[in-house]
Order: sequence, then C-alpha cells, then structure tokens
Amino acid sequence: MANFGLWDLRLVRPRDGWPNEKAIAAASRADHVLERVRVFETLEEAISDLTLVYATTARSRDMQKDVLGPEEASNTMAGHIAGGRGAGLLFGRERWGLLNDEVAMSDAIVTLPVEPAFASLNIAQAVLLMSYEWRRTSAEGRALPFSEGLDEAAPRNELVGLFEHLEGVLDQSGFFTTPDKRPSMVNNLRTALTRGRFTSQEIRTLRGVISSIDRRHLRPNPNRAKKTDADE
Amino acid sequence: MANFGLWDLRLVRPRDGWPNEKAIAAASRADHVLERVRVFETLEEAISDLTLVYATTARSRDMQKDVLGPEEASNTMAGHIAGGRGAGLLFGRERWGLLNDEVAMSDAIVTLPVEPAFASLNIAQAVLLMSYEWRRTSAEGRALPFSEGLDEAAPRNELVGLFEHLEGVLDQSGFFTTPDKRPSMVNNLRTALTRGRFTSQEIRTLRGVISSIDRRHLRPNPNRAKKTDADE
Repeated sequence: MANFGLWDLRLVRPRDGWPNEKAIAAASRADHVLERVRVFETLEEAISDLTLVYATTARSRDMQKDVLGPEEASNTMAGHIAGGRGAGLLFGRERWGLLNDEVAMSDAIVTLPVEPAFASLNIAQAVLLMSYEWRRTSAEGRALPFSEGLDEAAPRNELVGLFEHLEGVLDQSGFFTTPDKRPSMVNNLRTALTRGRFTSQEIRTLRGVISSIDRRHLRPNPNRAKKTDADE
Repeated sequence: MANFGLWDLRLVRPRDGWPNEKAIAAASRADHVLERVRVFETLEEAISDLTLVYATTARSRDMQKDVLGPEEASNTMAGHIAGGRGAGLLFGRERWGLLNDEVAMSDAIVTLPVEPAFASLNIAQAVLLMSYEWRRTSAEGRALPFSEGLDEAAPRNELVGLFEHLEGVLDQSGFFTTPDKRPSMVNNLRTALTRGRFTSQEIRTLRGVISSIDRRHLRPNPNRAKKTDADE
C-alpha cells in the first residue's frame, strides 16, 4: 500500500488482533499506514461510508456480479473518487478469500489476469498488484520516482565536427577503399553515430578517442603489427 | 512469473547454488518454470541471445540511460518479441540490486512508479509487478481467468409485467397518496427498478416477493400494527 501511496487500511476482526507486533515488524517503516489502521467488528461497518466497493476474488462465484479486470476497476474507482465519493477494495483471508455473503455486498468483482493453468497469488501479492494498478491509473502513477532523462544531445555542429574529424582521420588511414564508395560509407557511419544522440561531453570524449588512436598511428612503434584496413 | 505466464528464468551465479530446495519449496508447484531454469557464470552469457535488455532498478544511477516506466518498457518489449527477437528483464540482488556495470549493459532502465517518500519493494515484488505488466501488455493479459458476465436481462415485457404487478398492488395499498402524484411516483419506481437489469429469474423472484407481501396484507392478523403508507 505505502509503496503506491495508499494509506486507508481497514481491518475486520483481524485473526491475530490489533495492534500486531508481527505485522508492524513486517511493514518496513510504513508507520503512516499503521497509525491510521481502523478495526471494525463487521464488514458492514467497515464500508459504511463508501459508495463503491469492489471485491477481489481469485475464483469464479456463481453470482450475478460484473467481473472486472484491475485496470477497469481502477479507472472506475478513480472517477468515483475524483467525484468526491468514497471507494474501497475488499480483500479476503489468506487461504479462503472472501465468503460469498461478503462478495454479495460488493458492487462488482475484481480479478487479476493470471494464467488460468497456474494461479497462485497470495493476499500480499494481490494487494500489491491492485495498489500498483491504482497508482498507475491515478495521476501520480505517471511519475517515476526518478528519471534523469538524458542530457541534451549536443548541437548538430558539434556532431558534424565529430564526423569531419573522424572522416578526415579515416581518409588518411585509407579506410575508404575507393573514392566512389566513400559517400555511402560516410552515410552509414553518420547514421550509426547519430542514433546515439551524443552529448557535448560524449562528443569531446569520442574526439579524444579518435585523436588518441590517430596519434598512436603516427607514433613509430616497432612492436606494432602491420595495420589492416578497418572493416566497413 | 508463472502467475503471469512467464517461464524463461535465467540465473547468474545464484548465491545458494542451483537446484535449490528452498526455492523449489517456495515455488508453489511452478515446476514448468523450475525445470527450465538455466544457470550462467556471467551476465554476458545469460543475455547473449537477446537484442533488448532492460535493467530494473529502484534508485537513480548517474548514467546516460533512458528511464522507462513498466508500461512503456512492456510495450517496447512486446513489439520487439512480436518481431521475433529476444528481450529480457534484468533483476538485481535482493539487498543491493544491480551493479553499475550490470546496468551499463542494458538498453535502458526500468523503474516502478513507487511513492518517492516511501519505497520498499523487494525483488519478489518487483518481479511480480513486471510480470503483471508484461501480461497486461501482451494479448493474453486482456483475458481474465474467469468472467461469468451477467445473465441476459429479461425481455422488457417481463419487466413491464413486474411494474404493473407492483403498481397494481400499490394502488390497492394506498401507496399513491393522490392521483396526480401517481405518474411521477411510478416513473421514479420504474427508473430505480430498471437500473438493476433484472434477469427473468430475478423478476419471478421479485414478483413472488410482492405477492407474498400482498397476501400477507389480505390475511387477517390481529397482532399486526396499523398499516402506514409506504414512503415515496
């Protein structure tokens, strides 16, 4: 819940009572959720102020209820809440889920698109997924917790400077095997190097790389193997 | 993974070796995933056949990498895979995640839209959410494991039969306080009762309810309190 910005947790007759030391220890410092927990004697009391309640269930119920996917459910709830009304999601007990008379009190059923041949979600996973879907649906869900984005790509003249530097060096090194092949080889190189959207810093670095290799070529080195033409 | 139809799990030097009894016990019979696990000595080998690799990370890296949300990442991967190419998601170690040189080998970073003020996802939760998002994005994700849908609403003449039955009984019971109020009261009742889109069975049941109450009224009962007009 806390991972995805939810905090209104209501418990109905929790098996192990409340507060519960084990639950608190497992909550990874989600104190703002734990401090607000409300405990109710009945489901009716727990949802009394809500005007939209969905029951999460993992198996089919022979009931005249709409069955929604998480996205559809979240969208409807978001609209409902945006209208100033209260909506809630009902989760059942770990092993046997919600009783039919609890499901009957809901407006619709929500179920997750699990693989029918293999479905094994526990309540923590179901809560996590519904919380995630809620956040995804609500406005905040578009915002990632961090996103440097990329630095601005360098102005095009710097990229052209890199190209001309590189091509000049390649002209000298005999990279372009015949003059008529040069234009297409240059185009291929420029296409590949443009795709990366280099920053100014990266272009400086790449030009340093070229210069370094180029100077090495000019420097006599007795151990150096005979230079072969670079692959196209 | 298995909940959402994924099965290609690749491990790089797992801390506790493989096969691992504890992992198998925790896998809730996901044998088809466990049997296909491949173990690699290096990340490079593990992803060697893939042409798109995203690294999941929970914190910002000072790297020139795109940062994607799960939906965007899943969509791109789905397109990539639909084109017959391999894509993979990289998850790090439980406590300290992926090393920077591992992230560096990825095409982009994927992160979940967690609450910045409170983020505490473990690797199992991250895998669950990414698997869910994958399934949601891919075609199968539209299919819920069950969905009775609602039975067909009854033909309108049965609904009208219910209305006329009810209104006839109410005429007799004095529900409609004055004749000029009757049309609007009938309209309000019909509007409310139409909204539920009753099935034929439900209409039979409701008519049974009306008849039952109606017959009770006709049956003399000395203990019965003086009848008051129903509220509008």
